[in-house]
Amino acid sequence: MPSSPLRPIWWDGDAVMILDQRLLPHKHKVLRCTTVDDVIRAIKTMAIRGAPAVGIAGAMAAALGARTIMAADVRTFVRKFSRVCERIRSARPTGNNLSWAVDAMFAVVVENPGVDVPRLQQLIREKSQAILEEDVRTNEAIGRWGMEVVPRGARILTYCNAGALATGDYGTALGVIRAAFAADPSLHVTCCETRPFLQGSRLTAYELMAEKIPCTLITDNAAGSLMQQKKIDLVIVGADRIAANGDTANKIGTYALAVLAQANGVPFYVAAPRSTIDPLLPNGSQIPIEERDAKEVTHFYGRLVAPRGMAAVNPAFDVTPHRYITGIITEVGIIRKPFTRGIRRALEAPPPTSNPV
Amino acid sequence: MPSSPLRPIWWDGDAVMILDQRLLPHKHKVLRCTTVDDVIRAIKTMAIRGAPAVGIAGAMAAALGARTIMAADVRTFVRKFSRVCERIRSARPTGNNLSWAVDAMFAVVVENPGVDVPRLQQLIREKSQAILEEDVRTNEAIGRWGMEVVPRGARILTYCNAGALATGDYGTALGVIRAAFAADPSLHVTCCETRPFLQGSRLTAYELMAEKIPCTLITDNAAGSLMQQKKIDLVIVGADRIAANGDTANKIGTYALAVLAQANGVPFYVAAPRSTIDPLLPNGSQIPIEERDAKEVTHFYGRLVAPRGMAAVNPAFDVTPHRYITGIITEVGIIRKPFTRGIRRALEAPPPTSNPV
Repeated sequence: MPSSPLRPIWWDGDAVMILDQRLLPHKHKVLRCTTVDDVIRAIKTMAIRGAPAVGIAGAMAAALGARTIMAADVRTFVRKFSRVCERIRSARPTGNNLSWAVDAMFAVVVENPGVDVPRLQQLIREKSQAILEEDVRTNEAIGRWGMEVVPRGARILTYCNAGALATGDYGTALGVIRAAFAADPSLHVTCCETRPFLQGSRLTAYELMAEKIPCTLITDNAAGSLMQQKKIDLVIVGADRIAANGDTANKIGTYALAVLAQANGVPFYVAAPRSTIDPLLPNGSQIPIEERDAKEVTHFYGRLVAPRGMAAVNPAFDVTPHRYITGIITEVGIIRKPFTRGIRRALEAPPPTSNPV
Repeated sequence: MPSSPLRPIWWDGDAVMILDQRLLPHKHKVLRCTTVDDVIRAIKTMAIRGAPAVGIAGAMAAALGARTIMAADVRTFVRKFSRVCERIRSARPTGNNLSWAVDAMFAVVVENPGVDVPRLQQLIREKSQAILEEDVRTNEAIGRWGMEVVPRGARILTYCNAGALATGDYGTALGVIRAAFAADPSLHVTCCETRPFLQGSRLTAYELMAEKIPCTLITDNAAGSLMQQKKIDLVIVGADRIAANGDTANKIGTYALAVLAQANGVPFYVAAPRSTIDPLLPNGSQIPIEERDAKEVTHFYGRLVAPRGMAAVNPAFDVTPHRYITGIITEVGIIRKPFTRGIRRALEAPPPTSNPV
């Protein structure tokens, strides 16, 4: 059962329940997913989105898949489970957390030799729940570490949705904002609407209002002007994949905000769990960037806004070079430059205790 | 009568006909304006928009007003006409062309002493038509000058709509693109949708498709990433007001594009008639920035997208400091740095002949 009305995904018996974020903030509909394909469809259509939440959905999809595998022996089970995992992994290419979660699910069979199929199915299901619960604790730790970079009365800009809805609960960038707001109710958040899917106006605004955090909505193209006018003290965004050198893929438009922040002397922070880091990529140039349907740009709620036949491109993400990033807020601390060393150390650090501060 | 289906405003007898741009590209409806207030409403609601087009609308509104002034003598007429002009001038604050056009209209009474009221009314009406026709010639000259900055096969980024629909016809930034395309059909234009009013996806896309100019639509937040990927060779935008030092007010988001262009070594050009220049403003800090209804951000075609009660700010323009601008393309040539001297010289230059090249 969800711990908050903003929790995007949870187990209900043998079904994965997914809050359909395409309908927020005006409709609160929950999808009941009983097959791997149900969850993959929810991921691809962005009923659930946000790299950590997609990772959790992938883990739960793997558990759904494991449960229905017909296998007379463990060997057959593992072969079929591997195929399920690969199908899930390819649902969305840019975020690292989906691959990370699928790897963690497959590791259950590797780490439990000599265990029979029913028990493996049970362990896999338990692992998916553990990944969900660990994500929430991780975000709370990100929030505690991140608080220190938020000055009193800060005017914070955030982008897209890196909140409860993008994670297991609590959020990464919004986790930092939640933690900072609890200590300092005088802060203010500006959220960019985040075209074309409007995660900012539909989701982040919804979360901020639910928490009674003072907030204002702007179009994405107004963010630079606010920074130019010294109306923003810091930027905090989430991430979909972070390379070993700190280059960060995140929602399209993040790069522009980072360049504008640097041009105006505004600190720019990325908040993300370590599961977002892809240590095998030396830099961001090899991060696969998902290209989504042009209709997301030419249409609005199914209504064509551009001329009929107008071509559009719709890259869902961009890559912010590490030189524009002030720090990466993780559950084990804030990584600062040089990022390559800091990221390596963060990945080697033990998981956070319940309160690292 | 309009010379092209893209012409936004023209006289039809004693009525000012305005193409209602709020309904484009899917509906082609023309508003018949017979009073000053009709035209002011069309300007305020953005049925007509684009600084030069708004200037022309203001001139025609002045002529409509002059026609209906009840005055027994010239002195009374001038007093009443002055009040009409001031009402028109305040319809939209940021663009310079409206003030410039109203000044030009009022100058008719100043420059024609000893002329009776009916003749003044006629001269005023003729002046409004002359301003329209001069604007089209001006844009054609801007196009001829601007061609020289467009390399062969250029991939051009433009913003908002600085086309026929934003002017008397032909356009400023799109005038340059029209002229360049006539000489080199291999060029390509990327247009940003331009939230919240979508002048890019609704109007610029419409103009480009009508001219069969190869084009692609993107969300505003994708422009930086395209520049980062070396997919844009130059940026050309229009302007609403240019200060004496070259600082340029234009549609919100222009500043961000200029910063991103400089960060990526992409030339950034402003195309505008001299009537957009405000030589009395030493720099852009004093340009009045219109703040429009928050509903333009929270609603989409009348449909609420953000949570009910969400606050939004909606500045319609921003100011690009001159240091980010490569050149200002006017009807008398391209102004380059230092802009203060170049702008002064441009303002002193004679009007363009029919072909300055």
